[in-house]
Amino acid sequence: MNIGLIGLGAMGRAMGANLLRAGYGLRVWNRSPERCEELVALGARKVDVPGDVASGPDGIVLTMVADDAALQAVVDGPGGLHDALGAGGLHVSMSTISPETAAALCAAHAARGVGYVAAPVFGRPDAAAAKKLFVLSAGDRTARERARPVLEAMGQTVIDLGDDPLHANVVKLGGNFMIMGMIEALAETLGLAEGYGVPRQTMVDVLTQTILPAPLVANYGRQIAEHAYSPARFRLALGLKDAELVLGAARTAKVPMPLAQLMQGRLLSAVARGRGELDWTGAALGVAEDAGRAPVKN
Amino acid sequence: MNIGLIGLGAMGRAMGANLLRAGYGLRVWNRSPERCEELVALGARKVDVPGDVASGPDGIVLTMVADDAALQAVVDGPGGLHDALGAGGLHVSMSTISPETAAALCAAHAARGVGYVAAPVFGRPDAAAAKKLFVLSAGDRTARERARPVLEAMGQTVIDLGDDPLHANVVKLGGNFMIMGMIEALAETLGLAEGYGVPRQTMVDVLTQTILPAPLVANYGRQIAEHAYSPARFRLALGLKDAELVLGAARTAKVPMPLAQLMQGRLLSAVARGRGELDWTGAALGVAEDAGRAPVKN
Amino acid sequence: MNIGLIGLGAMGRAMGANLLRAGYGLRVWNRSPERCEELVALGARKVDVPGDVASGPDGIVLTMVADDAALQAVVDGPGGLHDALGAGGLHVSMSTISPETAAALCAAHAARGVGYVAAPVFGRPDAAAAKKLFVLSAGDRTARERARPVLEAMGQTVIDLGDDPLHANVVKLGGNFMIMGMIEALAETLGLAEGYGVPRQTMVDVLTQTILPAPLVANYGRQIAEHAYSPARFRLALGLKDAELVLGAARTAKVPMPLAQLMQGRLLSAVARGRGELDWTGAALGVAEDAGRAPVKN
Amino acid sequence: MNIGLIGLGAMGRAMGANLLRAGYGLRVWNRSPERCEELVALGARKVDVPGDVASGPDGIVLTMVADDAALQAVVDGPGGLHDALGAGGLHVSMSTISPETAAALCAAHAARGVGYVAAPVFGRPDAAAAKKLFVLSAGDRTARERARPVLEAMGQTVIDLGDDPLHANVVKLGGNFMIMGMIEALAETLGLAEGYGVPRQTMVDVLTQTILPAPLVANYGRQIAEHAYSPARFRLALGLKDAELVLGAARTAKVPMPLAQLMQGRLLSAVARGRGELDWTGAALGVAEDAGRAPVKN
Repeated sequence: MNIGLIGLGAMGRAMGANLLRAGYGLRVWNRSPERCEELVALGARKVDVPGDVASGPDGIVLTMVADDAALQAVVDGPGGLHDALGAGGLHVSMSTISPETAAALCAAHAARGVGYVAAPVFGRPDAAAAKKLFVLSAGDRTARERARPVLEAMGQTVIDLGDDPLHANVVKLGGNFMIMGMIEALAETLGLAEGYGVPRQTMVDVLTQTILPAPLVANYGRQIAEHAYSPARFRLALGLKDAELVLGAARTAKVPMPLAQLMQGRLLSAVARGRGELDWTGAALGVAEDAGRAPVKN
Repeated sequence: MNIGLIGLGAMGRAMGANLLRAGYGLRVWNRSPERCEELVALGARKVDVPGDVASGPDGIVLTMVADDAALQAVVDGPGGLHDALGAGGLHVSMSTISPETAAALCAAHAARGVGYVAAPVFGRPDAAAAKKLFVLSAGDRTARERARPVLEAMGQTVIDLGDDPLHANVVKLGGNFMIMGMIEALAETLGLAEGYGVPRQTMVDVLTQTILPAPLVANYGRQIAEHAYSPARFRLALGLKDAELVLGAARTAKVPMPLAQLMQGRLLSAVARGRGELDWTGAALGVAEDAGRAPVKN
Repeated sequence: MNIGLIGLGAMGRAMGANLLRAGYGLRVWNRSPERCEELVALGARKVDVPGDVASGPDGIVLTMVADDAALQAVVDGPGGLHDALGAGGLHVSMSTISPETAAALCAAHAARGVGYVAAPVFGRPDAAAAKKLFVLSAGDRTARERARPVLEAMGQTVIDLGDDPLHANVVKLGGNFMIMGMIEALAETLGLAEGYGVPRQTMVDVLTQTILPAPLVANYGRQIAEHAYSPARFRLALGLKDAELVLGAARTAKVPMPLAQLMQGRLLSAVARGRGELDWTGAALGVAEDAGRAPVKN
Repeated sequence: MNIGLIGLGAMGRAMGANLLRAGYGLRVWNRSPERCEELVALGARKVDVPGDVASGPDGIVLTMVADDAALQAVVDGPGGLHDALGAGGLHVSMSTISPETAAALCAAHAARGVGYVAAPVFGRPDAAAAKKLFVLSAGDRTARERARPVLEAMGQTVIDLGDDPLHANVVKLGGNFMIMGMIEALAETLGLAEGYGVPRQTMVDVLTQTILPAPLVANYGRQIAEHAYSPARFRLALGLKDAELVLGAARTAKVPMPLAQLMQGRLLSAVARGRGELDWTGAALGVAEDAGRAPVKN
């Protein structure tokens, strides 16, 4: 069975490799075409315009692109999915995007008889490579069931969130927000510990040995303890984008989220200081600087 | 071997029962003396003034009281520890108190030849009853080693934090602050989810199945999802006290902690609205109200 | 001389009356056409589509509409300014809009030979009626000089901000943000005073008699002291829009503005609680509620 | 008539000079005795212990010291006011202190028959020198009337706040908080303006010519526009102390004050970065740094 995949950043490449490994035929497109080579070497076929990844009007196309605008471009731009998919087609949208964009996309597809499944994921590129992603899935039942085996080829679990595709987008944003909150909480706690002479890593170790025995806390905690923010596993500039998606959704839902504002401010400040290419845990540098400390390395 | 225990709230009673079970003789004192009966029935001996819990000037005394002022009172008030303990005595201080109070206490004891171990714990009364507490331990090595078997009788792990007793206090405050941050993050995330029609518990379930597989997230998440804040497992008014201890320590260490300020504001607002006796997860009600929602139950 | 005026809310009507009084001929358009009657009774001519307010391709058109979207609609919608104005035309844009929209508009006009002056104002409808507005003015020098006498007919002062029209928009947003900050500061101060039994109005009186002898502080202070937020002089929902324009501009300029975030949260919460039609000083209700106080009237 | 004055910082010296000029006899005491020389040269008499400034048990003593602790020391320390004043004595307390300290002092004096008037002032040392202070006054009516002519000798107005001395303290804290809020609002507005190329001073000028025609806005605005924070007119470290007094009072009154928290964070960060000796407008440096800008001078 053939599948199309649009968007070959670090995430998309790792996911595509797993699809090939699972026996799917794969056509790929990426804005910077040289990014296709890795998957082509594994058997994928590179095409010239986004819509050509579809095996036909009733094909399945996965998208994993940077943001709402990039997604919009590959859908309704020239040679886009709107031109290629028709009745029986299926768009599995895996990027972290706003619920509003998801709703608009879903409606535009429906008018053409194209199914839409929102399938954002938790996990960074190393998890994608190891087929350890957590995949969310929401949308019309038929479409969702059709997408399921494809999604299972890329992750350790597929979590079904029902018929409304926006739910997957909101849950994904909610999860990313939790991580942002964890970054701030860790940064402040480690700053406090350091202020009293407790080694930063000791504070992390106690947390993971007691109240927060989660790999995420251990991994993020270690990065923040060591101020080790490069190379980026998830770019800080993308984290700022996510904070803004969260606040946009909060605005729509009329839910004030002061912690999300705090994190948007931290990330915006980091971008203003030229740190957009660091890992997003680099937001913690702001906490250290506010305390008048120059971190040893960044 | 005989041990003294001062402070028989829900935590102290559960801890004392485990000491008796481990074969220790126990003398107890509590400001409201009727709270002693439960342990007396298990074999403890009730005394009239705090200092009388000591088996002699060289005895071991544990304290688990509400706050800095209560601790100060049982130490240097009439019939207090300062009158009872002398050379070779040991004070194991298990309350959540400020580093400053700990430092002053430690110095005052040292001048009398009394050892001091800071041994705050993570865990609520049910964990204490099940001997599942995580116990921190810091102080002079000899004192720490003497306290260790006693602490092991009350918890699942004793984490050694070295010679400086303040380190245990700061790590404890840091941990409690992480929980506060988690409460706020959960409250905002669940509010966002609810705003888009995602069931609050679904959001919690996804988090614990994916990025945050920690019992604390599951337990606190369930309470917040259901707005189930009564009976209190940890009283909100004590949570406010802890937020203020965190900010006081942050002030001393010159570490601005905006998330700690956010939580102090949430908890103060809850107390102002008459919610001091709820569980501290009840801080989440403020998030719901800011979004114009009246929670179904509280 | 004939002038066109689009947007007849309370501000636009008061401004139009002053233009008629100054002897200008006036053609008017408003989305809800019944709002035109007041000025028609004073001699204005009502037209059917926005572009028809222009006396010709080289005419002068003033716009005073609710937000960026409304402005966009009257400019490039059907029968809009883009169809009506040409070489020698002048658009004097008086609404509070984002710098980005202003920049786009200015460029689109320039491509057609149409001049653009950004001329936002400080003052509420009563000030507009009394010709007491403070008018900012920025844009190409020739255009600015042509607009000046028209602007002088509507305000007590016209403040020239140079050639870049965005500067007027940013200064206007900055001023509105200062007022928001004043609302929060007053609300918190009066809450503190009340908490100690000092009458709220006494606190306002001391401020205006000592460090802040400004009519704005007296007027806003009185409203907040009395929790008198209705009828609205400036609608809270518009205040929320302005807070978001400020944060959008701050995002573009990469300037974290935590106080602007605080106010966006306050205003969003007020809208979520159904207070969008109150005066924007009604944001102060949130401060009272956070302190557990039910204000006597709102 | 003889008056005692304790506390000869820049404020106290300027106030004392005005008392001498008004014909009062003056005895003075200061912790660093060399600070007395300036007033001694003008005719004051320097004494050895604080209590000796009193002309007798029924004398009038003014205090203008740095903080609650300094005041406590001169009152109940050795040779303090408690030893010197008795029935018929009057303590006019002009320092910015917490309402709690004021309440305790007032009660302690009352038990000795000593009157207490809280008389904090608005104005910096140059205003004190020019007899332009705004003086608040609260306390028992008889005491207040006795203090009035003395206070009038030091300021342009004496504002009567009634019988409860705490009211004067709270109003003073509220006023200082308003100034802090103004500093933050100005710093953010000027940062936004600068981000769009609007000169910082232009933004200040528009504000003072339009919505905020207050000398305080002009003066503070100019300092912030130019990042001119040295020499200090009011030390940043004292501003931090005042922010903490505000938050302490807010805690007691159960009034969450997020803007006060924001300012405490800014000021604490500034102190952590070694800026405690700058003028408190230097809090604005934090806003510039968060935006990634290195101010030209500080």
